[in-house]
Amino acid sequence: MTENPKFDQLKRLLAEVDDLRKASTVLFWDMRVKMPPSGSDARAEANATVARLMHEKFVSKEIGDLLEALDENDYDYDSLEACLLRVTKRDYEKLVHVPPELTGEMRRAGAIAVAAWGPAKERSDFQALLPHLEKNLELRRRYVDCFDPADETYDVLLDDYEPLMKTAEVRAIFDELKEELVPLIKEIADAGEVDSSFLTGDFDPDAQREFSLKLVHRLGFTDDEWRLDTTEHPFMCTPGEHDIRITTNFRPHDLQSVFGSMHEFGHGVYEWGVAPELHRTPLGTGVSLAVHESQSRTWENLVGRSRAFWRYWYPHLQESFPQFASVDEEAFYRAANKVHPSLIRIDADEVTYNMHIILRFELEQELIEGRVDPKDLPQEWNAKMDHYLGIEVPDDAHGVLQDVHWAGGSIGYFPTYALGNVISVQIWDRMKEDVADIDKLLERGEVDEIREWLRTNLYVLGRKYTPQETIERVTGSRIDSGPYVRYLREKLAPQPA
Amino acid sequence: MTENPKFDQLKRLLAEVDDLRKASTVLFWDMRVKMPPSGSDARAEANATVARLMHEKFVSKEIGDLLEALDENDYDYDSLEACLLRVTKRDYEKLVHVPPELTGEMRRAGAIAVAAWGPAKERSDFQALLPHLEKNLELRRRYVDCFDPADETYDVLLDDYEPLMKTAEVRAIFDELKEELVPLIKEIADAGEVDSSFLTGDFDPDAQREFSLKLVHRLGFTDDEWRLDTTEHPFMCTPGEHDIRITTNFRPHDLQSVFGSMHEFGHGVYEWGVAPELHRTPLGTGVSLAVHESQSRTWENLVGRSRAFWRYWYPHLQESFPQFASVDEEAFYRAANKVHPSLIRIDADEVTYNMHIILRFELEQELIEGRVDPKDLPQEWNAKMDHYLGIEVPDDAHGVLQDVHWAGGSIGYFPTYALGNVISVQIWDRMKEDVADIDKLLERGEVDEIREWLRTNLYVLGRKYTPQETIERVTGSRIDSGPYVRYLREKLAPQPA
Repeated sequence: MTENPKFDQLKRLLAEVDDLRKASTVLFWDMRVKMPPSGSDARAEANATVARLMHEKFVSKEIGDLLEALDENDYDYDSLEACLLRVTKRDYEKLVHVPPELTGEMRRAGAIAVAAWGPAKERSDFQALLPHLEKNLELRRRYVDCFDPADETYDVLLDDYEPLMKTAEVRAIFDELKEELVPLIKEIADAGEVDSSFLTGDFDPDAQREFSLKLVHRLGFTDDEWRLDTTEHPFMCTPGEHDIRITTNFRPHDLQSVFGSMHEFGHGVYEWGVAPELHRTPLGTGVSLAVHESQSRTWENLVGRSRAFWRYWYPHLQESFPQFASVDEEAFYRAANKVHPSLIRIDADEVTYNMHIILRFELEQELIEGRVDPKDLPQEWNAKMDHYLGIEVPDDAHGVLQDVHWAGGSIGYFPTYALGNVISVQIWDRMKEDVADIDKLLERGEVDEIREWLRTNLYVLGRKYTPQETIERVTGSRIDSGPYVRYLREKLAPQPA
Repeated sequence: MTENPKFDQLKRLLAEVDDLRKASTVLFWDMRVKMPPSGSDARAEANATVARLMHEKFVSKEIGDLLEALDENDYDYDSLEACLLRVTKRDYEKLVHVPPELTGEMRRAGAIAVAAWGPAKERSDFQALLPHLEKNLELRRRYVDCFDPADETYDVLLDDYEPLMKTAEVRAIFDELKEELVPLIKEIADAGEVDSSFLTGDFDPDAQREFSLKLVHRLGFTDDEWRLDTTEHPFMCTPGEHDIRITTNFRPHDLQSVFGSMHEFGHGVYEWGVAPELHRTPLGTGVSLAVHESQSRTWENLVGRSRAFWRYWYPHLQESFPQFASVDEEAFYRAANKVHPSLIRIDADEVTYNMHIILRFELEQELIEGRVDPKDLPQEWNAKMDHYLGIEVPDDAHGVLQDVHWAGGSIGYFPTYALGNVISVQIWDRMKEDVADIDKLLERGEVDEIREWLRTNLYVLGRKYTPQETIERVTGSRIDSGPYVRYLREKLAPQPA
């Protein structure tokens, strides 16, 4: 309970901004999941207006004056008051440089481009998306110009997704990953191919949906608070507290949806676990996209691709998909963890996944710095796929058009995916010091202790601290690629004969 | 093309208000159709904030000054400019009396009450809804107090749904209906019961959905611009131009969904047909709820319960539901038009339907004037059901809890349903002067000419004129119960032996 009426007034105004954020999230979710295609123009306008108003409300003089009048140093560092003031002041200082009209324009252009992306990908027609990408890029350049020059142009964009992190820091981590993973990929390739033929075939989408639902229910999904829907490109969003929505693509010829559902569950459960006292404030969400991704990758990979997990779940999978009757558990486990260069990021194994991200991270910098022209993206993409993974891209649908992010206007988002991989293992290793015998739990299909540890140590914090502070509070160390690389080697490197 | 920059500025500001209206509509649709139940509190806040902002934006000084500076008499009466100024000024003059906070509070209370209504109806627990009804009523009283005293308190509420119509005018029409319909209901009852036993049974909801979709597609529904979803209480809404959404309840033991789908299609096609030049302005929607209802009832009843319509569709229905193999077309037609007092308004036949409305119209006046206490609603309801329809209400789920409207805070809405019936036949009769051999068209399953006549004569007008002007432009006369009563008699009165 606070007794400062100015603080209460600030919270009231910020709650209103958060209501608009929720409205905006519903508009976005609906656009991606339910809206009839012809609704896209009107939706782009509605999106733009709500985004602009949210921006205007947040940088209002009223909020500015209250932030100036309130001093975080009057409160205990860990208190809601101090955290709220620190984070809100930083958000305010940043957003106040940007004209609300530009926010609206970026939202409008993104919505229109996302509507164009679906059909463009379906027809593998890069030219159809190109003008939208050019528009997005032009708007991002105008956005960058709102701020004082940074060390690198890309820093400005990265900061929206990974606050306070610099491009150079990311590059250093990615250089470490490259150095370790390129030889690891070669070692694995040299050891001969794992049979994963049984992971391709006919998998009834309804049965996939049923199995995925059974699985996420066991992880913590409830019908009261969650939804699972179908989309081309899976995502998670929260249109309200206690209203967590994940989506998956139940493709008829593989089982990626099972891992995709766990991935999105990981995003959802992070939001679900934020402390209620942070609701309707700027602190009431995940601290950064890298930390967010650490949780989606935790549930998808550290839990969902572990041997112990499938000890419990494989018989259920066999029940849902009779074609596995003749495949033993170990063969399935090895196939589900097969390391093999492939075209599609979201289907990639745990090792090569990072190369997909490094490719995008490099291209994004080249785009925003003008070193690559958007019209040359397909060639550049394909050249990098050959360079990093040694594979040929047959068409743009399986290349530069595969992700929705650039259409949505997100540049600077991708690197958080690989950073999330790195962080996930740091957190997991720390958890193992507190939660005994994780494998035994997973073998019994039990995850409550795991979820509860993550909730009370990480999820509850929301955005109270900076991402780096958050990682340090949870793990005791700064972001570090060491544990992740060790984990990959231990799990996936060929065993000496 | 207009050359007045002030008018352009006004249109820009009104477009922004319309974007918020769309956002609000998506929040509403999602809440009713998709939202997980625990999301309701956060949604109520988001709803309230968006409604309040929309209100604030609309009654802003900027819009007020522009409305003062612009004179509708400078433009041709029928021009977009003159119509927009007339309608917007009237809306503004009304809304400027209401504090935006009250708008927000009404929206919040309505959203919370709608969430409570579902479970309350399911358990037939009136007490669970009572505090919400009391809250809604208190807020409506505060709303009424914002305005100068009207002839009758109810006038203020009615005007929100049926602009410029007075309670006394509605009462006069309803008195005419009572005078004609009470004896008609008796005549029909005396003539003996029609067999409709085959309309109750097992009707696979998926088959109902498929049939309803086939049907509305033929009427004008397209997958590009429309959606059909499932809800407990059917409705239509438009979250954007070219984004028309209808809902139906596919109950497993009857075929009401077929008529319900046509009903909501009628609402949708009216919005669909509004002239594009009116989009993103206050004129870009149906003119009043009575005229709206005239169109839902046109497609549900004048088209959808006609003999000619089923001449084409009955074989298709028999194909979808094999139990009709032994029922001949005439027997089905008579059953689908059976006049018989029943408990549920939305399932009622064309004649007794109006008595359900008159009951609600009377109760609403008694509630708002304080002559009936909300806690006594169940008894009052049941007494009127006995008085008007001679039937006993077994429980509140089949009585006072059946409709969502009062939970949503809508008081003054119901009478527009019966007014819609009256208007529908006036318009239909006028159309018959222009469209030759309507029955022949329907017998071939063709409705394009009908839809096109309604579109070009009514739908395109949107809110350019007052409801009364609109009705007169389309039909040549004021609202008049005569044609409707003649239609009912002709179609449904017992034939002399």
